[in-house]
Amino acid sequence: MIRVLLVHDTSLVRSVLAEWLRRDPGLAVDDTPWRGASSRLRSLCPDVCAADLDCTDGHGVPPLGDLCPPGAGGRPPALVVLAHAYRPGLLRRAAEAGALGFVDKAGSPDRLVRAIRSVASRERFVDASLGFGFLKAAQMPLTRRELSVLSLAAGGASIAEIAGSLHLSHGTVRNYMASITRKTGARNRVDAIRISRGEGWV
Amino acid sequence: MIRVLLVHDTSLVRSVLAEWLRRDPGLAVDDTPWRGASSRLRSLCPDVCAADLDCTDGHGVPPLGDLCPPGAGGRPPALVVLAHAYRPGLLRRAAEAGALGFVDKAGSPDRLVRAIRSVASRERFVDASLGFGFLKAAQMPLTRRELSVLSLAAGGASIAEIAGSLHLSHGTVRNYMASITRKTGARNRVDAIRISRGEGWV
Repeated sequence: MIRVLLVHDTSLVRSVLAEWLRRDPGLAVDDTPWRGASSRLRSLCPDVCAADLDCTDGHGVPPLGDLCPPGAGGRPPALVVLAHAYRPGLLRRAAEAGALGFVDKAGSPDRLVRAIRSVASRERFVDASLGFGFLKAAQMPLTRRELSVLSLAAGGASIAEIAGSLHLSHGTVRNYMASITRKTGARNRVDAIRISRGEGWV
Repeated sequence: MIRVLLVHDTSLVRSVLAEWLRRDPGLAVDDTPWRGASSRLRSLCPDVCAADLDCTDGHGVPPLGDLCPPGAGGRPPALVVLAHAYRPGLLRRAAEAGALGFVDKAGSPDRLVRAIRSVASRERFVDASLGFGFLKAAQMPLTRRELSVLSLAAGGASIAEIAGSLHLSHGTVRNYMASITRKTGARNRVDAIRISRGEGWV
């Protein structure tokens, strides 16, 4: 029996997906929204954590760090993520968080069951249709510092607020924003934020 | 037997949700992504169309007009939408498109079946938990013209491009943006776009 914790923010979808997984007699399935995932992982110690990368607000970045609770005792759960190929930023974050399985949400739900079985045996599972997304993730042009600037800008912060938060001069922040706009092929700052949000970078 | 067309952009979720609905012997269920919904409605002429308001790109506005194909013959399908209370802009668009049923995605999937049965008898169905969303929708502060300006800005257009598209002067566009920023309680233009996108207005 493989014990699975399903993490998904939309209650209606989560219920239906959990029930669908429970039809497999080899799976014991619990479910939770992202908020609360960390404590559920600690109390349940599942073999596999299957998490949808799309958070409640539709364009946020999920708290993947919560899925690897420190000091959980025993080995941490193997991580499978449900992802879109067009959001390379989230694919990269999941890879950095140690995900072993990557299931394309544009595919069939049967793939999720196969992915759960693979990662439960600590074998990697990657949907081929996510390949282009990984390629884009590998080609990410922004530096970490540029991403920090962009994240704050995307949250609605002004140049002055960004400068204050990151201890930079206004001119340096403006230079970063210009470089971000150029690298993302955007027309302007708002366009750069739109593109980067859509791809899951910030 | 109620014939239902389920419209949802994420293939994996759509499959599981359609299969879940099919367990009800009183429902005959087909499914489609948003793209293609219009032609499927024309060919199938279902009694009910159940559509998820969240489009593929995570923050787009769904083409609700496609769900009422003109000249389809016979009466158009009754529309049920799956919605979030925190996206009042989408609730309002669905109401304007003539939706009869509103199911909260933060609720139980059983509600969807009840909603389908209600609207099939041309009775309204509204989840009480969406109430706050409808209240916000009713209090929408922006004018149609301001929404047009904001939509273009959110798509990455510059002041000059917006002025060109809407046949306005640059100064008028700037005034609209200032008024939008004030009315949405935003800190600046980027913040106004972020807030409005999140709520589903643009």
